[in-house]
Amino acid sequence: MSKFFSDKYAYLTPYTPGEQPKVMNVTKLNTNECPFPPSDKAKAYAAAHTRELNLYPELQCIDLRTKIAALHGIDADEVILGNGSDELLYFAFMAFCDDAKPAAFADITYGFYPVFAEVNRVPYVEIPLRPDFSLAPEDYYALGKTIFIANPNAPTGMALSRAEVESIVRANPDSVVVIDEAYVDFGGESCIPLIKQYDNLLIVQTFSKSRSMAGARLGFAAGSAALIQDLNTMKFSFNPYNINSMTMAMGLGVLEDEETTRANCRTIMENRAYTVEKLEALGFTVLPSKTNFIFARTDKLGGKALYLALKERGVLIRHFDKPALSAFNRITIGTRAQMDVLLDNIRDILEG
Amino acid sequence: MSKFFSDKYAYLTPYTPGEQPKVMNVTKLNTNECPFPPSDKAKAYAAAHTRELNLYPELQCIDLRTKIAALHGIDADEVILGNGSDELLYFAFMAFCDDAKPAAFADITYGFYPVFAEVNRVPYVEIPLRPDFSLAPEDYYALGKTIFIANPNAPTGMALSRAEVESIVRANPDSVVVIDEAYVDFGGESCIPLIKQYDNLLIVQTFSKSRSMAGARLGFAAGSAALIQDLNTMKFSFNPYNINSMTMAMGLGVLEDEETTRANCRTIMENRAYTVEKLEALGFTVLPSKTNFIFARTDKLGGKALYLALKERGVLIRHFDKPALSAFNRITIGTRAQMDVLLDNIRDILEG
Repeated sequence: MSKFFSDKYAYLTPYTPGEQPKVMNVTKLNTNECPFPPSDKAKAYAAAHTRELNLYPELQCIDLRTKIAALHGIDADEVILGNGSDELLYFAFMAFCDDAKPAAFADITYGFYPVFAEVNRVPYVEIPLRPDFSLAPEDYYALGKTIFIANPNAPTGMALSRAEVESIVRANPDSVVVIDEAYVDFGGESCIPLIKQYDNLLIVQTFSKSRSMAGARLGFAAGSAALIQDLNTMKFSFNPYNINSMTMAMGLGVLEDEETTRANCRTIMENRAYTVEKLEALGFTVLPSKTNFIFARTDKLGGKALYLALKERGVLIRHFDKPALSAFNRITIGTRAQMDVLLDNIRDILEG
Repeated sequence: MSKFFSDKYAYLTPYTPGEQPKVMNVTKLNTNECPFPPSDKAKAYAAAHTRELNLYPELQCIDLRTKIAALHGIDADEVILGNGSDELLYFAFMAFCDDAKPAAFADITYGFYPVFAEVNRVPYVEIPLRPDFSLAPEDYYALGKTIFIANPNAPTGMALSRAEVESIVRANPDSVVVIDEAYVDFGGESCIPLIKQYDNLLIVQTFSKSRSMAGARLGFAAGSAALIQDLNTMKFSFNPYNINSMTMAMGLGVLEDEETTRANCRTIMENRAYTVEKLEALGFTVLPSKTNFIFARTDKLGGKALYLALKERGVLIRHFDKPALSAFNRITIGTRAQMDVLLDNIRDILEG
């Protein structure tokens, strides 16, 4: 920290992303990426847009917003794009939280929420999950706070039904409810269809997981035109050209290829079922996952010890040092071959 | 505005970027883009990185930071990358300004500075330029504020020498001085060589102007390792993966092709001299420019009238409605052919 750094942020602990090894001779199952590269169409669209990069991107992102809206049966003015979904979550903390309207989220959820609250200097409460790591909808009724729920949740992988989310939205008519659907395409139920009914519902999604675009940085939010306008006020006060032209073009290409996305998601779900079955046979407890990762523990070895032993063998998974989570590890579901590497190494370690 | 929008930002007026017409059958001289597309090498680097976009970008951006540092004779830990330079300016307002350390900048300068101050809720003072639009360095001595200077300045195009900037940096040892060098490659003197001597100096540059990458979004800041660490604290509390992999690769390609950049800048400077000469012959007053734009006025026609008449003819320049500026227009320097279209139309309008 320099001597010039504002006291405002002296308390701030930035988010710690998962390791991104520079050398890729590892089995990388630690940051919930899709193991399949973008489709040829998506790559071609991006490459075609390297020509006119001397010009600023189209400011309103209208083509891509229109395409996303059409896919979900909503209007383009109900959609805003972000440089990844993190940027949009940050804007939501800016726009909809303050001293009079604190934030609320689960005590076990995406680790960036408390950082977003702290950097925006808004108070927040963390609501405990049930002992089985499920989220109790009634804990969120009539809270008087801006609510952030990752659904499915991370790192547990567990999901609320659309009806359960709707009950929370309906019980908080005077507060914004933000549903972070980063992982919804792997078996969850999206709540985007509800935004026409509820003016307090904001959905955030990303192209990083099911759409193979983590490296291109693209997310979007869907909500009433008024909520989206509020987020645009933030965007245009910070970085109006937040999405580069190549990424916008690639997003269009990916959406023209929805069948590829659906097929990739089906494969991931099959590989998830396979991995869970094998891990349970080895004595693991695995939480019921609707995501492209699983959260698993075994009595035979501590979570950190397993993480370190796998890392030594070139298999990277994610461990969280938080007491409630430290028995577990979060394992991204990759290709069948990657999962077999993981399982073989786990067998070796446990037999070791 | 929705009923949920925080009162904190009710006063906020977002920045208004220049028009970005969707249909490109116009002579576009309004947002200071480079008229030349990225080099073949830069395009090829970006296209090559559409393959592995399912993985997150390399988090530390080490290759590109190292390359930028080498070009300027500094160290990689003295460089941070941004999703355009706007993002880094925003981080600087966050990190180095607060109630105890207000911001200070010229009353005529980049229009985003007051927006960045307001969205971060930091007080600021606007220091008048001299009547000839030059900036008086002594007005900035011992201010006790965090200083933001666009050098060369926009929309005037006028520059301070490195010695003048140094006098300001030296006279404010307890405050950060941010020099925004977006336009420095068109005849200005960069102050990056001074960062080794002054721990309170932060330089911000962009790849949008001289390096033909406006559509790819890339900027960087250079300063002491401690200042850069402060900006990283902001970045990692907001959007750790702020630069996509294609843009990082393209930035490397552009820097391996510095001769193209230098040649493009020389051409722009030649076209600038040509345009100034022709406009002066038509009776225009043109401020002395060290940028890829000029700021010009004529007694024969008001600034807004000229802007509108050119727009009707398919030539887009930038007009600012602020009283001190409304007699002028800001005209981007493009290709010789584009400048001839501009000049022919201006002749027609003035004779009409």
